[in-house]
Amino acid sequence: MAANESAPRAQEGTGVTPLSGVGSAVWYDPNADLELGEPPAAEAVDPDAERERFEDARDRARAELERERERTAERVGEDEAAVFDAHKQFVDDPQIIDGVEAAVDDGLPAEHAVDAAFEDPIAQFEGMDGRMAERADDLRDVRDRLLRLLTDADRVDLASLSTGSILLAERLTPSDTAQLDSERVAGFATIEGGRTSHAAIFARSLGIPAVVGVGEDLESIDDGADVLVDGEDGAVIADPTPDQRERAAAGRDVEIREEPVATADGRSVEVAANVGTLAELEGAVAQGADGIGLFRTEFLFLDREAPPDEDEQFEVYREALAAFPEGRVVVRTLDVGGDKPIPYLETPDADNPFLGQRGIRRSLGPDADLFETQLRALLRAAAAESGTLSVMFPMVATVPELEAALETVADVAADLESEGIEHERPELGVMIETPSAAFIADELAERVDFLSIGTNDLTQYVMAAARENERVADLRDPCEPAVLRAIERTVAAADAGDAWVGMCGEMAGDPDLAPLLVGLGLDELSMSAVTIPEVKAAIADLETDTAEALANRATDAATRTTVYEHVNTTTDQ
Amino acid sequence: MAANESAPRAQEGTGVTPLSGVGSAVWYDPNADLELGEPPAAEAVDPDAERERFEDARDRARAELERERERTAERVGEDEAAVFDAHKQFVDDPQIIDGVEAAVDDGLPAEHAVDAAFEDPIAQFEGMDGRMAERADDLRDVRDRLLRLLTDADRVDLASLSTGSILLAERLTPSDTAQLDSERVAGFATIEGGRTSHAAIFARSLGIPAVVGVGEDLESIDDGADVLVDGEDGAVIADPTPDQRERAAAGRDVEIREEPVATADGRSVEVAANVGTLAELEGAVAQGADGIGLFRTEFLFLDREAPPDEDEQFEVYREALAAFPEGRVVVRTLDVGGDKPIPYLETPDADNPFLGQRGIRRSLGPDADLFETQLRALLRAAAAESGTLSVMFPMVATVPELEAALETVADVAADLESEGIEHERPELGVMIETPSAAFIADELAERVDFLSIGTNDLTQYVMAAARENERVADLRDPCEPAVLRAIERTVAAADAGDAWVGMCGEMAGDPDLAPLLVGLGLDELSMSAVTIPEVKAAIADLETDTAEALANRATDAATRTTVYEHVNTTTDQ
Repeated sequence: MAANESAPRAQEGTGVTPLSGVGSAVWYDPNADLELGEPPAAEAVDPDAERERFEDARDRARAELERERERTAERVGEDEAAVFDAHKQFVDDPQIIDGVEAAVDDGLPAEHAVDAAFEDPIAQFEGMDGRMAERADDLRDVRDRLLRLLTDADRVDLASLSTGSILLAERLTPSDTAQLDSERVAGFATIEGGRTSHAAIFARSLGIPAVVGVGEDLESIDDGADVLVDGEDGAVIADPTPDQRERAAAGRDVEIREEPVATADGRSVEVAANVGTLAELEGAVAQGADGIGLFRTEFLFLDREAPPDEDEQFEVYREALAAFPEGRVVVRTLDVGGDKPIPYLETPDADNPFLGQRGIRRSLGPDADLFETQLRALLRAAAAESGTLSVMFPMVATVPELEAALETVADVAADLESEGIEHERPELGVMIETPSAAFIADELAERVDFLSIGTNDLTQYVMAAARENERVADLRDPCEPAVLRAIERTVAAADAGDAWVGMCGEMAGDPDLAPLLVGLGLDELSMSAVTIPEVKAAIADLETDTAEALANRATDAATRTTVYEHVNTTTDQ
Repeated sequence: MAANESAPRAQEGTGVTPLSGVGSAVWYDPNADLELGEPPAAEAVDPDAERERFEDARDRARAELERERERTAERVGEDEAAVFDAHKQFVDDPQIIDGVEAAVDDGLPAEHAVDAAFEDPIAQFEGMDGRMAERADDLRDVRDRLLRLLTDADRVDLASLSTGSILLAERLTPSDTAQLDSERVAGFATIEGGRTSHAAIFARSLGIPAVVGVGEDLESIDDGADVLVDGEDGAVIADPTPDQRERAAAGRDVEIREEPVATADGRSVEVAANVGTLAELEGAVAQGADGIGLFRTEFLFLDREAPPDEDEQFEVYREALAAFPEGRVVVRTLDVGGDKPIPYLETPDADNPFLGQRGIRRSLGPDADLFETQLRALLRAAAAESGTLSVMFPMVATVPELEAALETVADVAADLESEGIEHERPELGVMIETPSAAFIADELAERVDFLSIGTNDLTQYVMAAARENERVADLRDPCEPAVLRAIERTVAAADAGDAWVGMCGEMAGDPDLAPLLVGLGLDELSMSAVTIPEVKAAIADLETDTAEALANRATDAATRTTVYEHVNTTTDQ
């Protein structure tokens, strides 16, 4: 963005949606009104009445949580909604309830009793390790919710922000984002958070202009100020000039291409959407997706008492296929165990869950029944619609794992055949996300129709830098030469093995990286739907020769900095 | 082992030391005598006396723990000794002490009070995730220790087992192994445990014949029976034949070679020892190590209130070098953060610590001062002895990390120079343990004198299978083709970059794998000292051509099973 001299200075953060919005700043501080003050004398408190107030607050909290859970599940996905179940458990925790009741019996009003009863559990979790410490945040969220309900404290009602509000906050919690109405909020900016924070995922899913991780400077913007949030350039501008407003108001300066796209010299690249719920299919079609490159199936399994049966799954897969009658829908079989607990499955906790039993490791082990049912539903769906159904297995690290999965598909097909049930063999593929899969990609490619590179996990494992750990965030960049070499190796193996090769990590949705990825030889790129128009545009502008020269320079580079220099030189040409 | 028809059937487990021993079975059940029975009537209990008994038991527990900690630190290493500090903290935990005192005040004798006061904390930890659940085991250990001290319960005194005992147990805890006297115990076998369990590491460090993970069959051996423990073949034999006894009594039929070894056709391979304390140097020399291929420096930093100063470190490094006046000592700079907390360092817990800030990531970050002090001591030690000092950096994943580390070495050298302090530039190298390092090994090799492959971590990361997670143990095999290809790539990069390349993971100490590793082109193998004679013997028998043909077949294999077939075919020739 070319800013003229008199234009206000932009604050920089991480843009998470390629959209801009202008509106009126609304600062959100959820705990501003939660000061309780001194409790009244014990004689002035009626324990029975206070106990009743507490019960009433719990009832209301449960109802709120259920609403927020449903809203989040519908709009963002079950992954993101699961946190509300944890909150409901805390509302019903016997230790906490006992603590509140004991404090009420000692003469405290319900709100002071709640405050006191949460103190010890919060301190206990705070002293523990990462995941446990996060539970302290959850406990605080639950405590504050109860306190608000008990004290009728004012709270910025995020669901009824004035239309055209730009929300500014330290951070947005799951409870916060669940309330946001994308019709009303013109954008948001937060002091903390990164591209993979809850708020960022939420913004991309709902197409809200958003910049996260702006830093404390954001506080210089006053409530009520005019603010422009530019999610493409990662900029937040207070009191933007008429010029800047106009550019933002003009919206995205990119056309939506409904047709498949090719480079300027005619090489086709499939551009598909990643989706995690049926609700997202519509947005994918609207943004011009050629198909679905990653259909996550966890939403079918999470947040319920029992797994979905074959017919329920069949209907869902059929519906996804029906959305792209001439396209392709790539379904990933159930991938749980890393960070996605499911109530009715035994998912034992581990010290390093990302290096534990997840993905295909569970499907070939404790979840074998679920895997078979899912495959039955998929093979039936493949026969029911005109589009191409593709099925891929997550977390494969060895050839025997892949062979066992393929054998299960063959067994399921034989069963359906003998039962006289209509079915069709889908395309079969492997996700390349463990370093092992990249090293043996040749062996894998020989055995399947396609490979799909999951760059988020591949980067985490190649760099040994966990997705949730901020202290190693700097290492977690898919443009690290090591990751590019793993991708290069995978593409070469796919070509030799006569398999097509796609990418479905965050990297695939960055239009600036499209030349590099096309140059590396990827046949398909799959991304959040909202970024599809930009990526299609970038591909249409490309010459394959230039892209390949870039890819060669990038994989030969010693450092990520050099890779970005090459990328920028090519993009600027 | 060729057993004749009448020979007793061997039970199979995992042999962890290439040694055999015969002796008299002693079953060890630490909690057999800890039944407390009903408490006496409260009136019969004198709370003051009971409180005193409890204080006395705590004093004695602390003294025991301190002895066991010191014994373990001296004999095995500081890593293994650290667990006793955790136990001491539990003895002094205010919540537990309050609980015991409250129960004593309620009229319970001290032992019943201890039993009751530990109940809740144990249940709390049990409900938590992996690492936390282990703390429940630790709490039980501490509770049982206090109960034993309070009830004067009998306990098999592991420190005074009769000479020639073969210890049999469900498992051996740190407290158990700390007491073992390697002069008296002729071997041990356990129902549970694997090659990397505490008991296995302990057996290798002390050279005790041992087989772990035998399974419940072990219980068929009666107390007092004659038992042979064959740690080489992983066999446990009750009532062995005279033949079998004789073979065991004859000891290892391998000579100790004090000279460096070469293959039959003359290719030299350095065979070195991994050590974690100064105490292990003697054993390394005795087993014929050419030098030290991995000198872990964590023992200098663990289990103390403040880090060691430069002079203390200098003396330690000098002493290690002095043990090999014509050899090489490869020192790894401080590697903490994965699973090695240090009291005076801020090592924040993380959800996936193995994918977090560890090794060089800390040395270039929060531990920069320690890193500089360590390098000063190392550069001074390099000048003080005739042997070759080599320094390597753990967990390097990028070129800028390596360059920053090399720059720190240069800065430290310049400082020492300007201070007029004698010093010498050591050989400098990088550990190849992240997949990233394997992918960019060419860039790394160009910048250093050597690469050293740490197969334990490399395997964990390449296969995405955590070292401590039993559910993915099957994937954690360095003979997986993907890991072999990462090694192959590293060796090729070292050759091209004119660096030597070694290996210091468990894989290097398996004599059956020596042909594969020599064939892959490794210049150096470093291992637990006790396995050095077998590995040297295996190398001396080798023809390089055969080894290289094996390596080619192994890296081309699709599965680990095929790799092992090739390995066994070559070994049997």
